[in-house]
Amino acid sequence: MGNIRTYEPFYDKNREKTLEKVTEAYEKFKKTKTFEFPRWLYGEPIGKLIKVEVEDCPTFGDTAYVEMDTARTAFLSIDMQTDFCGKKGYVDVMEYDLSLTAQALDPIEDALKAVRKTDMKIIHTREGHSPDLSDAPFNKILRSKIIGKGVGIGDTPEGGMGRLLVRGQKNWDIHERLYPLPGEYVIDKAGKGAFGSSTIHMLLKNLGVTHLVISGITTDVCVHTIMREANDYGYWCILMKDGTGATDYDNHCAAIKSIKMQGGVFGNVTDSKRFIKALESTK
Amino acid sequence: MGNIRTYEPFYDKNREKTLEKVTEAYEKFKKTKTFEFPRWLYGEPIGKLIKVEVEDCPTFGDTAYVEMDTARTAFLSIDMQTDFCGKKGYVDVMEYDLSLTAQALDPIEDALKAVRKTDMKIIHTREGHSPDLSDAPFNKILRSKIIGKGVGIGDTPEGGMGRLLVRGQKNWDIHERLYPLPGEYVIDKAGKGAFGSSTIHMLLKNLGVTHLVISGITTDVCVHTIMREANDYGYWCILMKDGTGATDYDNHCAAIKSIKMQGGVFGNVTDSKRFIKALESTK
Amino acid sequence: MGNIRTYEPFYDKNREKTLEKVTEAYEKFKKTKTFEFPRWLYGEPIGKLIKVEVEDCPTFGDTAYVEMDTARTAFLSIDMQTDFCGKKGYVDVMEYDLSLTAQALDPIEDALKAVRKTDMKIIHTREGHSPDLSDAPFNKILRSKIIGKGVGIGDTPEGGMGRLLVRGQKNWDIHERLYPLPGEYVIDKAGKGAFGSSTIHMLLKNLGVTHLVISGITTDVCVHTIMREANDYGYWCILMKDGTGATDYDNHCAAIKSIKMQGGVFGNVTDSKRFIKALESTK
Amino acid sequence: MGNIRTYEPFYDKNREKTLEKVTEAYEKFKKTKTFEFPRWLYGEPIGKLIKVEVEDCPTFGDTAYVEMDTARTAFLSIDMQTDFCGKKGYVDVMEYDLSLTAQALDPIEDALKAVRKTDMKIIHTREGHSPDLSDAPFNKILRSKIIGKGVGIGDTPEGGMGRLLVRGQKNWDIHERLYPLPGEYVIDKAGKGAFGSSTIHMLLKNLGVTHLVISGITTDVCVHTIMREANDYGYWCILMKDGTGATDYDNHCAAIKSIKMQGGVFGNVTDSKRFIKALESTK
Repeated sequence: MGNIRTYEPFYDKNREKTLEKVTEAYEKFKKTKTFEFPRWLYGEPIGKLIKVEVEDCPTFGDTAYVEMDTARTAFLSIDMQTDFCGKKGYVDVMEYDLSLTAQALDPIEDALKAVRKTDMKIIHTREGHSPDLSDAPFNKILRSKIIGKGVGIGDTPEGGMGRLLVRGQKNWDIHERLYPLPGEYVIDKAGKGAFGSSTIHMLLKNLGVTHLVISGITTDVCVHTIMREANDYGYWCILMKDGTGATDYDNHCAAIKSIKMQGGVFGNVTDSKRFIKALESTK
Repeated sequence: MGNIRTYEPFYDKNREKTLEKVTEAYEKFKKTKTFEFPRWLYGEPIGKLIKVEVEDCPTFGDTAYVEMDTARTAFLSIDMQTDFCGKKGYVDVMEYDLSLTAQALDPIEDALKAVRKTDMKIIHTREGHSPDLSDAPFNKILRSKIIGKGVGIGDTPEGGMGRLLVRGQKNWDIHERLYPLPGEYVIDKAGKGAFGSSTIHMLLKNLGVTHLVISGITTDVCVHTIMREANDYGYWCILMKDGTGATDYDNHCAAIKSIKMQGGVFGNVTDSKRFIKALESTK
Repeated sequence: MGNIRTYEPFYDKNREKTLEKVTEAYEKFKKTKTFEFPRWLYGEPIGKLIKVEVEDCPTFGDTAYVEMDTARTAFLSIDMQTDFCGKKGYVDVMEYDLSLTAQALDPIEDALKAVRKTDMKIIHTREGHSPDLSDAPFNKILRSKIIGKGVGIGDTPEGGMGRLLVRGQKNWDIHERLYPLPGEYVIDKAGKGAFGSSTIHMLLKNLGVTHLVISGITTDVCVHTIMREANDYGYWCILMKDGTGATDYDNHCAAIKSIKMQGGVFGNVTDSKRFIKALESTK
Repeated sequence: MGNIRTYEPFYDKNREKTLEKVTEAYEKFKKTKTFEFPRWLYGEPIGKLIKVEVEDCPTFGDTAYVEMDTARTAFLSIDMQTDFCGKKGYVDVMEYDLSLTAQALDPIEDALKAVRKTDMKIIHTREGHSPDLSDAPFNKILRSKIIGKGVGIGDTPEGGMGRLLVRGQKNWDIHERLYPLPGEYVIDKAGKGAFGSSTIHMLLKNLGVTHLVISGITTDVCVHTIMREANDYGYWCILMKDGTGATDYDNHCAAIKSIKMQGGVFGNVTDSKRFIKALESTK
């Protein structure tokens, strides 16, 4: 293990340069509480720069701002499918409290209205499986059947709208109120996360995205998994917390709190009011 | 969108077969509360079959069992590095309560002792960055510097052992008590997750792994991210809950609870006593 | 860089074990010229073991055999879409010689007939893009437009059947003669390769696949890219050479030869006759 | 399969916008034979714009130009390790003609000299395995042992410098003449490709890279695999053909020709003279 020649002297030059940029940004943050859009890395903005207020950053009780280029930001609405927030969908069949996930509908609808007036990109995701279930792991289908008392992924519940979590079924599609408009993007994924089973790598790259404002359900499952993946790849992630929801309220709250640890271990947290306010500042 | 010819009739055959296997396993589960090792999929066991008791499955208060082949199971000890659970490491410098992460040491040590007597694989992971920080996103370094009041990833804290989270530094290496023994595997990763930035795809495949028993820190960050990724790819994941810990107790508890939702949305949860008991049954 | 403690003594145990298995397999190969199905790794076969004769292995002029478990082998038919081998498809519009890719139809049809009598899995892939082209890199669309003299990906050529390489269009779908039957699998991918933009990781894992017999078009582009990816992940890959074709004959030949270098740098090469013969031996 | 509502009307808006940008770029290309740096996507250049002449584009015999931002371009030197181009390395032990791969040394050295005067990034890659070989598929090790007549990956050949293709060994490290200087980056990968087994996703993203000028060995194996992966993800790839080499001359030529098919199916091809000329134009 290890190299024959030590790389330390070689790496120094890069480290110095990177740490210099970090130090600059750190000094600015101390004065302005703002994560500035890093022009040295992404170049000049293509759209307009906006500053979104985020909470509990760097520590709980503090307020900070994330600056982003509207043209390089995508608003993500994750898995707002009937199966997760509508009647006779998957979550409903499992007898969880629907209002916990449906609470995300209003704030996302509000945010979409504001985003649609800008050049910010809008991406919807859908979790679902091929009709032959070949992209669903055996244990995933089995667990869903057990918890559903015999009705799991690929089955049609009594009085249901179609096969649960299967692509092409009504219950699998996006909720009426948030349905994609012309010019919006849709990512179909087979897992909780998206980067290992979809074209999302390409989509974000083709759109030139650097920042993500994230909403959708459920907070602790798909929303968090995608946020973690995107954060690992270096995207700036901001959760719009009121536009989320989970099948358990404690898990919902912890998922939000978890993001804020260590100065923002998975990114930052805002809400629809603050996000919309920032969008309206571009007028 | 959609195919020209509908695939439904084509897919039926696969769906039928898959759902048949699921139904069989479901019927067995109802009688035995056991997720049996799926021989139809993986073939006959190579090592010994053991049954690990898992809690709150399928619903809270229930007990179930996961059957696994010792020779195809890997015990994961995630990021038990000085930076995360030792003095003068990263978490310590951020002034979080060390005992919250260090609590994982004893149970993992116990588990390792038992696993080392079997043919189960042992994999340690380490989060860390190249000395030039080129594999660390700018926002990750910046946030760590802000929360560390000027001392972040790549910096050496006053009285510290070396550069924080940098490969090759003492603080970055695995804690003395859990240090890898001959014949154990180590995965170095740049993110919270592992599948997008390491050779873990190859390692698990080269070892023929189907099941993972997961321990390490922190529960809600690296442990959960790797568990989510592995679960998405179809691995059977069981968290050994006492062999984990987080910088916040509520987040730790919620991370554990979150796994149990929907009949085991990310897998199952056990503890070191039950896991060791199962291992000892092979004698 | 490098670890604090040297890992060499630790790794020795694994290295010894791995090299021992390799040495055993090497000694057997010297006697039998066969890459035996590694039971120590995958367990006992689930289906039947067959031996497929492969050419120019380990060196040019030699003959060897790859042993595989029918139940854990997938036959891949890559991108046999009208766009690549049919009239008015993409390749046709670019005015390449169609017979060069259409030559793959007969051998694949023969192979499918034989495979369909066994428990071997059949996977078809399709390259294509979402109707909004959001998963197609800008440079890919642009280059196709330039070489197509104004008619590229997403455009409908004069007298054509639909938009080139767009999902849901007739020209994009699989050729009539090789159309998937019930119980066969289909992977839609956005690139030349598949592992970064589809659910193929899950599919192969869900099916328990260890070996791939690969056919399709074009030899040097999509077939080779998928073979390279699968080989890197450790799948045993065997190209069925007569069931392939490329827009340039020299590139086709070199693509086949390239696989055989270094004792099989990307796997091995057979043809439909030898493959079918092996399949028929299971009766 | 297919959506309930047809997306066509929704997607139209995106398609129109994308096809408009493509049409604009196509019209410019017709006049200038230049793939202009797409400011609408990446923003204004951060460094200097240079135009690299590429050959046989869009059709054989034609000349075209690729415009790139020096600050967002990385020069890749792939696997210029002793194992692949030096005495007693892996290729040498396999008794291939060393001059075929060593021919890449001079042109890369020349190119590095020119690149080092600019703000273009330099990335070196190394193929290699952990000392315990755990990230090397069994079939890869076995095939290497067979072709090496008992001396394969992980073994030390008679009179050799160390274990073949093992990280940390002299033979595995980068050739003396092209050794990384301070401020250059190194990617260690376990496969022929890099995106599935390394931190290259992060590195390219952290550096803001949009274009890659690619050199190294061997042309048809590692160079081509990385070029294919990067091209699939949307990077603009240009092969510097004289800075490459393969263990077989025909395969080398075909690998180069293959890139040029279909108007540049994997990108474009230049040579060191033309690349250096473009770099010097920035003065």
